[in-house]
Amino acid sequence: MYPTHVHHDGSELYVPDQRPELGAEVTVFLRTSPEVTQVHVRSTPDGEPRFTEARVDRRTGAETWWRATVPQRNPLTRYRFLVRDGRGPYRWFTASGLHDHEVPDDRDFRLISHPAPAPWTADATIYEIFPDRFARSSRADARPVPEWAVPCAWDDPVVDRPPLVERQFYGGDLDGIAEHLEHIQALGADTVYLTPIFPGHSNHRYDASTFAHVDPVLGGDEGLRRLVDALHARGMRLLGDITTNHTGIGHEWFGDPALRDFYYIHADGGYECWCGVPSLPKLNWNSAALRARFVGDADSVVKRWLRDFDGWRVDVANMTGRCGVDDLAHEVSRLVCHAVRQVRPDAMLVAEHNYSSGADLDIDGWQGAMNYAGFLRPVWTWLRGDDLDMSNFLGVPGNVPRRDGTAVVAGMVAAMASMSWRSWTHSWTLLGTHDSPRIRTVVGDPERVEVAAGLLATLPGTPMIFAGDEIGLAGRGGEDARRTMPWHAPQRWHRPTLRRYTDLLRLRREQPALRHGGLRFAHVDADSIAFWRETPTDRLLVLARRAAGAPVALPGVRGENLYGGAELAGALPGDGPTIQVWRCPAPAEAV
Amino acid sequence: MYPTHVHHDGSELYVPDQRPELGAEVTVFLRTSPEVTQVHVRSTPDGEPRFTEARVDRRTGAETWWRATVPQRNPLTRYRFLVRDGRGPYRWFTASGLHDHEVPDDRDFRLISHPAPAPWTADATIYEIFPDRFARSSRADARPVPEWAVPCAWDDPVVDRPPLVERQFYGGDLDGIAEHLEHIQALGADTVYLTPIFPGHSNHRYDASTFAHVDPVLGGDEGLRRLVDALHARGMRLLGDITTNHTGIGHEWFGDPALRDFYYIHADGGYECWCGVPSLPKLNWNSAALRARFVGDADSVVKRWLRDFDGWRVDVANMTGRCGVDDLAHEVSRLVCHAVRQVRPDAMLVAEHNYSSGADLDIDGWQGAMNYAGFLRPVWTWLRGDDLDMSNFLGVPGNVPRRDGTAVVAGMVAAMASMSWRSWTHSWTLLGTHDSPRIRTVVGDPERVEVAAGLLATLPGTPMIFAGDEIGLAGRGGEDARRTMPWHAPQRWHRPTLRRYTDLLRLRREQPALRHGGLRFAHVDADSIAFWRETPTDRLLVLARRAAGAPVALPGVRGENLYGGAELAGALPGDGPTIQVWRCPAPAEAV
Repeated sequence: MYPTHVHHDGSELYVPDQRPELGAEVTVFLRTSPEVTQVHVRSTPDGEPRFTEARVDRRTGAETWWRATVPQRNPLTRYRFLVRDGRGPYRWFTASGLHDHEVPDDRDFRLISHPAPAPWTADATIYEIFPDRFARSSRADARPVPEWAVPCAWDDPVVDRPPLVERQFYGGDLDGIAEHLEHIQALGADTVYLTPIFPGHSNHRYDASTFAHVDPVLGGDEGLRRLVDALHARGMRLLGDITTNHTGIGHEWFGDPALRDFYYIHADGGYECWCGVPSLPKLNWNSAALRARFVGDADSVVKRWLRDFDGWRVDVANMTGRCGVDDLAHEVSRLVCHAVRQVRPDAMLVAEHNYSSGADLDIDGWQGAMNYAGFLRPVWTWLRGDDLDMSNFLGVPGNVPRRDGTAVVAGMVAAMASMSWRSWTHSWTLLGTHDSPRIRTVVGDPERVEVAAGLLATLPGTPMIFAGDEIGLAGRGGEDARRTMPWHAPQRWHRPTLRRYTDLLRLRREQPALRHGGLRFAHVDADSIAFWRETPTDRLLVLARRAAGAPVALPGVRGENLYGGAELAGALPGDGPTIQVWRCPAPAEAV
Repeated sequence: MYPTHVHHDGSELYVPDQRPELGAEVTVFLRTSPEVTQVHVRSTPDGEPRFTEARVDRRTGAETWWRATVPQRNPLTRYRFLVRDGRGPYRWFTASGLHDHEVPDDRDFRLISHPAPAPWTADATIYEIFPDRFARSSRADARPVPEWAVPCAWDDPVVDRPPLVERQFYGGDLDGIAEHLEHIQALGADTVYLTPIFPGHSNHRYDASTFAHVDPVLGGDEGLRRLVDALHARGMRLLGDITTNHTGIGHEWFGDPALRDFYYIHADGGYECWCGVPSLPKLNWNSAALRARFVGDADSVVKRWLRDFDGWRVDVANMTGRCGVDDLAHEVSRLVCHAVRQVRPDAMLVAEHNYSSGADLDIDGWQGAMNYAGFLRPVWTWLRGDDLDMSNFLGVPGNVPRRDGTAVVAGMVAAMASMSWRSWTHSWTLLGTHDSPRIRTVVGDPERVEVAAGLLATLPGTPMIFAGDEIGLAGRGGEDARRTMPWHAPQRWHRPTLRRYTDLLRLRREQPALRHGGLRFAHVDADSIAFWRETPTDRLLVLARRAAGAPVALPGVRGENLYGGAELAGALPGDGPTIQVWRCPAPAEAV
């Protein structure tokens, strides 16, 4: 289990300067139990280990707080603690925990002096919309149906097989979204993320045929403008979805002899494509002309649309720039980041990444990633329903495994330790997306949906809700999860789920500690996960239980309930499934 | 502990094709106990996970061997195993072990299709010589003493304080080395590594004043030629030591206005230097002219001297190219590698790296690194003497800690898992260097020196012996360890140590499994470390004990003793300290 007697993370409680400048001496704090007798900090300026001894800053009850400085010599500065307790040999404390042996430095804590994301990005709550399925405005009736499309009525079932898959056309549009902003805002989301809106030859539009204009069937450029205006009028924001890895085969670039080097086209006429799918030819980022058109020019794809969007979600970022001997992924992420910063320094920029994103972050590129590995997968494996029977766990052969809380937390910590606190907190926590089964289907009952939503609202990261999750929609796979939003059928809304999402997201909005506090696990066992979220002035305790169990003693710990209604008086209560949040006396007062 | 019921490593037993070509489908084997019911292999071609199911290749007694293929889509291909046993949830098996939770992919196994090092490099045994202290030929008497030098008689004590430190001059020379090749070859080393031989203003010469010629006090270019000829006549090789990170302040480049951009010179006349030492100005690898002079031109430093040397040890590789916002380390490692390959594709190229080298390997640069983190430090902490009292553990504040075998093996595995098997086996295992205390002083008695030498001879990696270790020389620090070699005082030679080193290195030379076999731990506890070294046709068992203890049952395991003399009959014997090596029935025959 994650050690509780030595703790540090990248939050303000331990690193007061959250935006260290290059060249700064950054103050860091380590919190230990009293038996720790000596602490050093090791950093590796320019690649060589350097130690400084920590001093006791204060002792509070059962804790000692150590203070040291780390030289921010490099934009990515790694540091770890050497901890002695006067008995055994020294141990290393890194972001992956306490170690009684040598460990590589890639799990060290990280300080980043690259320009920080805009403050709003760390406070945002994202609402993901797959436009064809969200809402259809009356304007949509007048628009011609695209040639690829098979029109469907709003209540027609989604079909996951050819020839209908990808071609079913329900006709949701941008004006339909604009008509439902009250729902989104009431839920507690402030940022809408749209899957692609450029024209393609499918209902998902990840096969763009141009980046020059918005798909007319969605309402075109004017429809986008109307949606943006409606959002901004409410103080809300909009994110686009950009395919840096590939276009559709029908793209105006593909087949243009002058733009041949935009793609990986072989001498025999074959070409590289996304995962072997011929309709999705892969972009070749070696091309200077592609770089200009995509990120360099003033009217490049990435820059131009930031007149409307407040940021980008980057599709297939994990593959972008990677092709055989080429690995331009880091370079492309920096190109995109710098292009975004040039025109919209306040924009959000988050990468799709479905497994180990840590190696692609903290390099002045993506601000964060969709956190499948460190959030969605662990949470699913903890809360999955007993009867869940799927042939595939998001690409992994076989059913979603069922794991205990200890393994789940270990998985979260392993992912968290692979990146900076900044990248972790700017990554999107999510319970489902347009590419996955629905959380309601995965966990099997609404009570465990509440636990899942509770973790979404209380753990570090930027929560993203896939439209429909908040009313308990079901779906066994990505396609099946793209059922239409039943605005007209209130009996299909699971009202308790909507109320819980709303209450939990409000709690997150009202409690800075849930957005910016550190993360320290208080107790973990098979069925319960309890953790502290702490700032210099506040201290919340969260308990998630997937099932009832024996109360867990936490002597002396008391708090005021903020969610869930249970009492905290010296023990974590045993009722479950549940999510509980309490405010406890602040650290300085705590025993 | 490292799991024994599931095993894989990068050796031939598990990866028959040791030099996979880009585009190949590489066959890999996983070995498990019979309860494993299903195995998949995951790789991440172009950054996207892809699974293939493994098939049972064969069952031998208590083991199942699974076979699968991994597409070598990228020059560095990562892969891991998904293992099911029909009971619990699937587990991931990576180079860091079995995991019941999500883990990042940077500890996955690695296949490398960059050009492989020459075969001799994996079979070499290195003998490190600090020229001033090894042997003085009669030719040396005629040479003038350099202005920086304070001449010393061969038996004068080494002084670790200014003004004598770095200036004591004992007058060892290259011809002196040539006169003692019989000793080196009889010991079992076949490759001599010389610390710098270019002129400097110190006895260590890491402050080069030119790369244009060999220091005349060592015998000059002709002396080097004589030494090379003498070595090659014996089938031996020679490695040089190149300072890519810095030169001496007295270097002909430094201060030359035309070469100002070779260094980091600030507007105020200050300059970057190695660890703040003003006499060692840091090279600036942004300079195209420096690149040309160092690695690009036909007579560049790196290329030119490979007419004499058979490879390079790269000084301070961990810092080279790293300076504030610059991180050119990977780029420089590739530049050096490609320059070496161009003129001497058979050359060895190994980096100094004193902590986490994994992140700097497997990128078509250094072939391996000096393995302080994954060998020297773990071995020292296991075998250190009870009375050892040092203020500093190679840069880490405080004494060398004393750790149990389990922690020691965990440290080795942690380092091993951070790089490919190829880089691990081409890294130098070492018990001491010119920068460290002597192993004799660290472990405190000759019996534990034998255990240390035994690990050096039997674990994967390229053994490097610092001249003098083999006769039991002592030394409390880098400078103190640079005492002269007492050729004239045989009473100071610890003959049993020399015999043990010689026997152990002969054993390594005679047993391919010790050089090329896989590594699988058989038993680890506080005082004993036992492991298998296996090839498709051979199976050796090694036992290292730092102290006597109870025998450990290994039912059914029998073998023929190859070193140490103890019997192996169903149990690891309890006598110690000891190093024992047995040949056991080959895997196919084993129960």
